[in-house]
Amino acid sequence: MLYFLSDYSQGAHPKVMEALMRTNAEHTDGYGLDPHCERAAEMIRELIGVEDCQVHMMVGGTPCNVVTIAASLRPYEAVIAPRTGHIYVHETGAVEATGHRVLTVDGVNGKLTPEGIDLAMEEFTDEHTLKPKMVYISQSTECGSIYSKAELTAIYEKCRESGLLLYIDGARLGAALTAEGNDLSIKELAQLCDAFYIGGTKNGALFGEALVIRNQAMNDHFRFMIKRHCSMLAKGRLIGVQFEALLEGGENSIYFQMASHANAMAKLLREELTALGIGFYSDSPTNQIFPILPAAVVKEKELEKEVAFHLWAPEKDGMIPVRFVTGWGTEKREIEELVQIIKRLLCKC
Amino acid sequence: MLYFLSDYSQGAHPKVMEALMRTNAEHTDGYGLDPHCERAAEMIRELIGVEDCQVHMMVGGTPCNVVTIAASLRPYEAVIAPRTGHIYVHETGAVEATGHRVLTVDGVNGKLTPEGIDLAMEEFTDEHTLKPKMVYISQSTECGSIYSKAELTAIYEKCRESGLLLYIDGARLGAALTAEGNDLSIKELAQLCDAFYIGGTKNGALFGEALVIRNQAMNDHFRFMIKRHCSMLAKGRLIGVQFEALLEGGENSIYFQMASHANAMAKLLREELTALGIGFYSDSPTNQIFPILPAAVVKEKELEKEVAFHLWAPEKDGMIPVRFVTGWGTEKREIEELVQIIKRLLCKC
Amino acid sequence: MLYFLSDYSQGAHPKVMEALMRTNAEHTDGYGLDPHCERAAEMIRELIGVEDCQVHMMVGGTPCNVVTIAASLRPYEAVIAPRTGHIYVHETGAVEATGHRVLTVDGVNGKLTPEGIDLAMEEFTDEHTLKPKMVYISQSTECGSIYSKAELTAIYEKCRESGLLLYIDGARLGAALTAEGNDLSIKELAQLCDAFYIGGTKNGALFGEALVIRNQAMNDHFRFMIKRHCSMLAKGRLIGVQFEALLEGGENSIYFQMASHANAMAKLLREELTALGIGFYSDSPTNQIFPILPAAVVKEKELEKEVAFHLWAPEKDGMIPVRFVTGWGTEKREIEELVQIIKRLLCKC
Amino acid sequence: MLYFLSDYSQGAHPKVMEALMRTNAEHTDGYGLDPHCERAAEMIRELIGVEDCQVHMMVGGTPCNVVTIAASLRPYEAVIAPRTGHIYVHETGAVEATGHRVLTVDGVNGKLTPEGIDLAMEEFTDEHTLKPKMVYISQSTECGSIYSKAELTAIYEKCRESGLLLYIDGARLGAALTAEGNDLSIKELAQLCDAFYIGGTKNGALFGEALVIRNQAMNDHFRFMIKRHCSMLAKGRLIGVQFEALLEGGENSIYFQMASHANAMAKLLREELTALGIGFYSDSPTNQIFPILPAAVVKEKELEKEVAFHLWAPEKDGMIPVRFVTGWGTEKREIEELVQIIKRLLCKC
Repeated sequence: MLYFLSDYSQGAHPKVMEALMRTNAEHTDGYGLDPHCERAAEMIRELIGVEDCQVHMMVGGTPCNVVTIAASLRPYEAVIAPRTGHIYVHETGAVEATGHRVLTVDGVNGKLTPEGIDLAMEEFTDEHTLKPKMVYISQSTECGSIYSKAELTAIYEKCRESGLLLYIDGARLGAALTAEGNDLSIKELAQLCDAFYIGGTKNGALFGEALVIRNQAMNDHFRFMIKRHCSMLAKGRLIGVQFEALLEGGENSIYFQMASHANAMAKLLREELTALGIGFYSDSPTNQIFPILPAAVVKEKELEKEVAFHLWAPEKDGMIPVRFVTGWGTEKREIEELVQIIKRLLCKC
Repeated sequence: MLYFLSDYSQGAHPKVMEALMRTNAEHTDGYGLDPHCERAAEMIRELIGVEDCQVHMMVGGTPCNVVTIAASLRPYEAVIAPRTGHIYVHETGAVEATGHRVLTVDGVNGKLTPEGIDLAMEEFTDEHTLKPKMVYISQSTECGSIYSKAELTAIYEKCRESGLLLYIDGARLGAALTAEGNDLSIKELAQLCDAFYIGGTKNGALFGEALVIRNQAMNDHFRFMIKRHCSMLAKGRLIGVQFEALLEGGENSIYFQMASHANAMAKLLREELTALGIGFYSDSPTNQIFPILPAAVVKEKELEKEVAFHLWAPEKDGMIPVRFVTGWGTEKREIEELVQIIKRLLCKC
Repeated sequence: MLYFLSDYSQGAHPKVMEALMRTNAEHTDGYGLDPHCERAAEMIRELIGVEDCQVHMMVGGTPCNVVTIAASLRPYEAVIAPRTGHIYVHETGAVEATGHRVLTVDGVNGKLTPEGIDLAMEEFTDEHTLKPKMVYISQSTECGSIYSKAELTAIYEKCRESGLLLYIDGARLGAALTAEGNDLSIKELAQLCDAFYIGGTKNGALFGEALVIRNQAMNDHFRFMIKRHCSMLAKGRLIGVQFEALLEGGENSIYFQMASHANAMAKLLREELTALGIGFYSDSPTNQIFPILPAAVVKEKELEKEVAFHLWAPEKDGMIPVRFVTGWGTEKREIEELVQIIKRLLCKC
Repeated sequence: MLYFLSDYSQGAHPKVMEALMRTNAEHTDGYGLDPHCERAAEMIRELIGVEDCQVHMMVGGTPCNVVTIAASLRPYEAVIAPRTGHIYVHETGAVEATGHRVLTVDGVNGKLTPEGIDLAMEEFTDEHTLKPKMVYISQSTECGSIYSKAELTAIYEKCRESGLLLYIDGARLGAALTAEGNDLSIKELAQLCDAFYIGGTKNGALFGEALVIRNQAMNDHFRFMIKRHCSMLAKGRLIGVQFEALLEGGENSIYFQMASHANAMAKLLREELTALGIGFYSDSPTNQIFPILPAAVVKEKELEKEVAFHLWAPEKDGMIPVRFVTGWGTEKREIEELVQIIKRLLCKC
């Protein structure tokens, strides 16, 4: 079975496992109050060029999103997101469980625009309506696309003039930062939002995300909120240890190497499929690609028996968009095998 | 520094780490839908002698408690707990965050009684009051004590006649099952409640608890509730892999060996302290003990500089109850060192 | 000042006031457990031709909506509504405050369609998504339009085949039932949904709505939920007394007379404005109409100084949609005055 | 049937009804933004001697409590209340529905003490515990007792030194202010808390309470919170009109006359029952009294058939505490009849 289902189908990079083994016998305080989390936070402050920020080691992406939103908003406030945003589409209403609306607007190629923010703001008039207070975007997006420096700058400016906080879901931040065509450094991105996280789960960690909060107003009693939302790990140091390993060497660390590798594998696959005449549902320079395949290949034929992947959108005119995701461990051989399988199935159609 | 702060200050048992290393490169589906979680669940069903039950691999104890309560109760229903219960004392209102009251009654040595349940039930009269629907207890309790078979039977009978579900927090279930004087097998315990969990975090796992739901009414769309409460791990198999390693060999597995060892270390410490004339705040046959030390030893002297531990209750008459916890990795040498330190500090008083 | 701001700008119909005066000195039990509420419920059961249903006397529309939704849905379930639905647009997230998403789809002239329901259902796939469980519509709608018998039948059938409950917000049910072109009797409407309410506040009561629940699954511990959501009136009989007065005489009661009068006044206004060459934003046969006026008339001229009304949508091409609402107390003289004012201001443009 | 069930079993004082009739045909803006609410607020500011405060006209007591708590607390904060407090005992978890714990401590005769507050504060240690932020008390209490000036001063001082807000539930504030032995003026009370409400429902209004917020930090977007919690009345002026009538004349208004009358009737009843040798469950100088009657009188005999009242606590040694409540409309004749009935039943025992 070939796995292109997600970038979290394998365990962690060997260096991460090694770090966990090396530190296993240590005794430390729990809940993230230990030297490893502290050192990882320092490494991150240096990497992003921001001294004055809070770094919280979080178990996963949904906890990052939910806790940040619940901690930053007052009950009558809402968060604006593109219609394809993860908090709206794939978190079983975890944000709504905290009482907040995810106010969606249509995006472009998965990306929110300043005009979209304006539209959302129009819904707010008085005490009979919710007050938008935060904007949520993902980098890279759920469609594989990335915001350019100009795009992110425009969104952040719109947020500031509208009294909105900007929060960036960085579940796949590594993929974005190492994507072909990306013109945003992590230092720049850190300056263009109020909070964001550096995703580990989808880039070579066992689990864990490093949440960076630059805007102190969002950090009020944040650890209380982490605990309250089921998201404080007893052996919190495990996340610190992993980020130490992931980020050792800064911009030359395995964190960026792994993301870069996953992108390269996706690019190779994209090129090979394009060569077969296959089109794409979304324009993605990162590790998620969305080819549109004949329904016959996807359903009646053997693809699902040989390859793990996701159907992405309903069938239309006999064609179905699917998602292939590459990861830190994807091998060139696997890309080649996948291409061969598709080629074979296309012939049979 | 000697660590008696908690039973989660170290990493995992070497066999657990080994299992994680061995399976690291495997590709599997995410979110707990993988062969390791499946096999671990089978092992648990066999261990507890219940074929017809759901087993969910959970990240931590608070997620187990919160998700089980939120999934099982209707909005107007409450959960009864002893005043010292973890959900009331140490979860930052995570249960209340889901809208449910934790209705507390005084326990005896940390244990709820059928009379306590009756008292709680009296609060319910009509639509102006909350309706108790579940009883929460811990085995072993937050005070280190354990329920006997007769005690648990009495509680479960009271629950059934009062229309209440019984849920057991098994964060330290291993310690309870291997405690001196325990007369409850895990098979019996499983028959005396509607749901419980087998704690991994506090007994040699990196993290992870295996939640067992016997009462199908409590399992409705349970995975939706796990996700909704920020508690679904992307690489869910990590918990399955750990429980495979923990429970290999069933009642002879490292799970029971580790708990037994921690209890033995605590017993040794208890005996040595008793020999020094020290009294205890709570009667505990498990791995948490609560000696009452002179305030001078705890505060003015050096104990806190050499030993990590928790103050447990306010000072009274110059004495302070503290908590020492032993774990799977606690060494006899450490017990001896701790006793020496206390002996030395007592002399100085 | 002429009032076309809402249908709740005046007190109650004189007969309602008279009933409140007549019963004022009576002693009764509180919270809606009194003979007046009971009798009003009986009158309603007869009016709608359904014996086997629950009738709850509620303080207002938002309480009806929120309590019904919160009582009927499990935490992971969502309610589908047209984008213009009151629960989405004008209740400050009161539904989200109970943890439920209002899942919106575009309507047609303010009305939901079976196709819209299908679209919403597509968002549900597995435990990572919310499960739609209820459909919310208003009759008449927030745009003044009404569902025909065929339209409501199609929606209810779609609901039943999709496992969805259908709930109708009847804040302006009187206006709908007495509208020109309406082909739905209240008896038929009652058969074409699981629950609905008969609005009093916007049709001649001081306050109060009669919530009818046909589907017993939605009525579980409903009074607990009313209390829990701040919506149980101590002197609950006040609502019963009012509905007795409103519905005395059944289909010939002041309830239908008042609604019919308000519609007639709106029709007169619509015709007069049409004669002035004014177009409308929405097609409404009920007591809310939405003429599109020149911005100069609305803003720079005197309209706002002489008439109370709402701006309805942003200015576009120099024109602004506004809302005029007539009520049980609107007099023909007021319509004529309003038309004269608009005529005068149009001339000045 | 004699009614001593509650102080809300009748309608409103005739002058209140008269005011509603007189203003019935007026057109005003909705939701409490009208001249009557404004004038009533001004009358209240004058009565309490505080110019700089917000006054919100609320539908009932639970809405006052819930909205004030939800608006003032951050998610991880809790409200302290005596064990007998209305928010804990009789609101079906409406406070918990907003995610906040009601942290109870034992009171004395229904009254919280500074020592009780200290006990509650001890539960707070760090991010694993909830942070108490507000104190809730009732004046008069649910047991009929009242806080003296010294007692309230001590509580308010304790609150301020502990960083707690003080909120007073004034459902029966009139009864407290006119009670024999009361030494607290409404002006003084207003200075000894952060917020309180002047109850109308239980003192001669149809419904409605006037919520006074002195601490501006508690008033943030308060109207959004009222709407969000189902508690904004469309015809909001109804509450303003009633308070204008209730408070006309200030300290000589019917508000104080009615409360004084109810207290006098309760005192008469208390004296007559004492003369019969009957003891009391609680020491109350206000309009709720709690005689302890032989179970035979209450249950087997006819008392429940002739008199409406509440059983207050479980039977003990053959005696049952009951509650008799007098109201603005209670007549001396009714007291005499009740005494005769009890006398007769006692003889039969």
